[in-house]
Amino acid sequence: MIEERFQLIADLAVNSIEAIRRTGIQVVALREGYAKMLMPLQGNVNHVGMMYAGSLFTLGEFSGGIIYGAAFNVEKFYPIVKEVTIRFSRPALTDVTLEVAMTPDEARRIQDACDRDGKCNFALSLEIKDAAGEVAALVTGTWQLRKIPEGMANPFK
Amino acid sequence: MIEERFQLIADLAVNSIEAIRRTGIQVVALREGYAKMLMPLQGNVNHVGMMYAGSLFTLGEFSGGIIYGAAFNVEKFYPIVKEVTIRFSRPALTDVTLEVAMTPDEARRIQDACDRDGKCNFALSLEIKDAAGEVAALVTGTWQLRKIPEGMANPFK
Repeated sequence: MIEERFQLIADLAVNSIEAIRRTGIQVVALREGYAKMLMPLQGNVNHVGMMYAGSLFTLGEFSGGIIYGAAFNVEKFYPIVKEVTIRFSRPALTDVTLEVAMTPDEARRIQDACDRDGKCNFALSLEIKDAAGEVAALVTGTWQLRKIPEGMANPFK
Repeated sequence: MIEERFQLIADLAVNSIEAIRRTGIQVVALREGYAKMLMPLQGNVNHVGMMYAGSLFTLGEFSGGIIYGAAFNVEKFYPIVKEVTIRFSRPALTDVTLEVAMTPDEARRIQDACDRDGKCNFALSLEIKDAAGEVAALVTGTWQLRKIPEGMANPFK
C-alpha cells in the first residue's frame, strides 16, 4: 500500500525517467522509511526467457531514489548514485520484488552529516526475490545525499 | 564498421531482447575480438538531463554478450553474466561509447578451459566514454563461458 502523502513521490519515481517507465516497474508499497517495488517479467525477458540483467539492475538502482523520497527531507537534500554491484544468483523466471528500508535513526544520522559536510554517502544492500521468495540477485551500492545549494531548483520536487 | 560475417551477431545482440532494443543501443564496430557500441542520450536521459544510470549499465552489460559473439565459438559455448559493478565517474551529457576487446590468446585460453571443465569465468574491465572522450563510468564484471550440452539448442544461434 502506498501512503497517500507518498503517492506523488511514487508517481514521479516511476514516470519521470523514460528508461525506467518503459520497464513497467511498479511501486507496490511506500511509507516512511520503507518501499517495495515490483519488476514485471513481461517486457523484461531475455533471449532465453528469464529476466534481463539490465531490468534487474534498474530495480536495484531504483531503490536509492525511492528510499531518498521515503526517508529524507526532499526540500533540503538530493541524491546521486556512485556505485552499484549486482550479483546474479539464479535465473528470475517470474515477476521479482525488492524491499528497501531505512530506520529513522539512520536517516537522521545521514541527514545530520550531510547538513554539516554538504554530502554524505549511504550504502544499501538489497535482495531481489522471485515469486517463490528465492533470491535472484543481490544488489549492493553506494549513493550520496547532497545538500541543495541556496537558490538551486530541486529537480526532485 | 561491422565486418559482414558479424552482421547477424550485431543484429541479434541489439534486437533479440526487447529491454535492450528499446534503449536504442547501436553496435558501431564489430570484428574478430573487438566491438564498439554507442548508447544515445536521446531516450535515455534522467530527470536532470544526464544519461540514466540503468542505460549506462545496459551498455556495460552488453559487452559480455557481444565479445562472446566476436571472440568465441558460438556453436560450442554460451555465456552467462555473474556479477557487474558500475562506478559512475561523471555525468554523461552526450551519447556515450564503449569499446571491448579480447586477444586471440585470451579467447583460446578461456575456450580451452571451458572445453575441459564445462565452464570458465572471464572478467572484463571497461570504460564508458562521453563524446569528449572523458570517462563517465567504469564497468567491471565477471561473465562465464559454458559448454553447450549435447542435444541442447543454442539460443544464441
